[in-house]
Amino acid sequence: MSTVLGSTPKADGFRMPAEFEPHAGCWMAWPERPDNWRDGAAPAQRSYVEVASAISTADPVTMAVSDAWFERARAALPDSVRVVEVSTDDAWMRDIGPTLLVGDGGARRGVDWRFNAWGGLEGGLYSPWDRDDRVAAKVLEVEGVDRYRVSFVLEGGSIHVDGEGTVLTTEECLLNHNRNPELSREEIERHLLDYLGAEKVLWLGQGVYEDETDGHVDNLACFARPGVVLLTWTDDESDPQHAISVDARRRLEAAVDARGRGLEVILVPAPAPAPVSAEEAAGVVSVEGTLPRLAGERLAGSYVNFYVADGRVVMPLLDEVRDEEATAIIAGAFPDREVVGIPAREILLGGGNIHCITQQVPR
Amino acid sequence: MSTVLGSTPKADGFRMPAEFEPHAGCWMAWPERPDNWRDGAAPAQRSYVEVASAISTADPVTMAVSDAWFERARAALPDSVRVVEVSTDDAWMRDIGPTLLVGDGGARRGVDWRFNAWGGLEGGLYSPWDRDDRVAAKVLEVEGVDRYRVSFVLEGGSIHVDGEGTVLTTEECLLNHNRNPELSREEIERHLLDYLGAEKVLWLGQGVYEDETDGHVDNLACFARPGVVLLTWTDDESDPQHAISVDARRRLEAAVDARGRGLEVILVPAPAPAPVSAEEAAGVVSVEGTLPRLAGERLAGSYVNFYVADGRVVMPLLDEVRDEEATAIIAGAFPDREVVGIPAREILLGGGNIHCITQQVPR
Repeated sequence: MSTVLGSTPKADGFRMPAEFEPHAGCWMAWPERPDNWRDGAAPAQRSYVEVASAISTADPVTMAVSDAWFERARAALPDSVRVVEVSTDDAWMRDIGPTLLVGDGGARRGVDWRFNAWGGLEGGLYSPWDRDDRVAAKVLEVEGVDRYRVSFVLEGGSIHVDGEGTVLTTEECLLNHNRNPELSREEIERHLLDYLGAEKVLWLGQGVYEDETDGHVDNLACFARPGVVLLTWTDDESDPQHAISVDARRRLEAAVDARGRGLEVILVPAPAPAPVSAEEAAGVVSVEGTLPRLAGERLAGSYVNFYVADGRVVMPLLDEVRDEEATAIIAGAFPDREVVGIPAREILLGGGNIHCITQQVPR
Repeated sequence: MSTVLGSTPKADGFRMPAEFEPHAGCWMAWPERPDNWRDGAAPAQRSYVEVASAISTADPVTMAVSDAWFERARAALPDSVRVVEVSTDDAWMRDIGPTLLVGDGGARRGVDWRFNAWGGLEGGLYSPWDRDDRVAAKVLEVEGVDRYRVSFVLEGGSIHVDGEGTVLTTEECLLNHNRNPELSREEIERHLLDYLGAEKVLWLGQGVYEDETDGHVDNLACFARPGVVLLTWTDDESDPQHAISVDARRRLEAAVDARGRGLEVILVPAPAPAPVSAEEAAGVVSVEGTLPRLAGERLAGSYVNFYVADGRVVMPLLDEVRDEEATAIIAGAFPDREVVGIPAREILLGGGNIHCITQQVPR
């Protein structure tokens, strides 16, 4: 498929639709590396199978798998999931996959952002990351969609859009010196608007406390529909997350979106902090070049890290005490969709959640 | 995609269409291994690009490429060719790819034959071959087509069909003890008919002289249309190929196809034998486990090893003296198609030709 050069999606009439707009499919990538996932990635693989199964009744799912794992992943996944060979460095399709755009008359194109493993050699999570950086191009080839290759470093989890011109992101990630240090805030805004086909960037400050992605917005907040934002929240003032969520709420309530609307903010309680256990940490093979998983570390759990499929929301279950309340709030925000919860601690142990491991293909 | 168990294509109403029936696409696989292709496979890659380009104006081409070669193959191929990651052991999509079938109402399924590198540890061409054996399943996943996995060993180049119930094959290959030694001739026929959705097997004897595939039919003869067979031919009685072609002609002229028709046989002159040169042999890295390429060895060149695309035939050019006559004969056999010749010695040096490196997807 061809690479589009010398232009931008915005100039060409393309935009990133919101996740709640109709889908043609969903991509995921199979977890394999034993230096990030405990017990040879077996528990995580079971969780990925559950997530893929839950999504595939709504959106056709394609799982990217290495050659080495191809037959085993094929055997583990339901028939309805398409399994294709795509080599990766890990399993975060939200961040390594393309951003798919729609144009007039149903045309589609994709953005292939540069990927540097969440910070390259300055705080990135593993090295090398060249296989991850090739994933977006490979997905677009299988989809038969032309590609914008951009030198701009961005992970898909660091942005959300409302599909009506508004981009939501965080300063902690997008302005981090380990992503695009040569660009000013204004130049970064310009890149986002040009490549997402949008009109306005809404900046939040920090992401979820101790989120190793440098504060991806998709773990903190998301649009339920234009004008409505779900925000992870805690009332516990002694928790560092409290000040982060208060700041985000203040910014959101003061903001006007690209269409001139104020925003309704719906608070979603965070799961109680549940640090990595000694048993969990012991299952991860520690190697040089990969962020270690240590017992006692806080995990950046958040219920807003869900995937919006056609007709259903697939959300993480993370805390027996708070799962029910969070599910009810999310169900209230998506009245036309069934909400399906999947026990997701094994995904969280790897550094993200259900939104991070999925990437929608718009219809 | 699901694997169909406990049934056969014939029982399920599926059949392999002839290559001259309409196509949805064509698959190829990128040549990479320097122990089979000279000069780091660079000359072969250029030939594959020419073949892919010539086909892609008629049939949409997908090129299977390893992760290591992905970006370079993408850069070398025209935009119109889709490039997808599929690990292989070599580059013979005819033999490692699926056999695609059509059913009532346009449904498609695929046969994933067992592959053992043209003879396994008894005369096979390289070891290991596990990546090749996974290719058919991967192609079918990308195509979104359900799969029959068969324990029967077969390469796609060892069969031709007329699309009307007749299968053409050779005893040298199909009855070779290094393919399915536990099966009788009758059982092998039964497998072919069941999995190709056919009615009758026509047996030729030997394939082209010194063909390292154990005499694949696709290098010896093929259907131009139902009732008409092209056969590689030499008038030189001192050439061992003469007796092989005479025997094949005799069998074909005595045969009746599945519809009860006699066969018209069109003779296509073989290119003059042109052995591997010292320079050509010196460019191949010799390793244990891969058939060596030695100076002076005869190559199994044949003009019938062409690909029939929608509206065009893409054929090898192999001998300046005979190319023109062969082209004219093939053009006469396909009066509604443009015949495009591609210089193909670099492909022949690797052990096959244009039919061997392609696999059609019926429409």
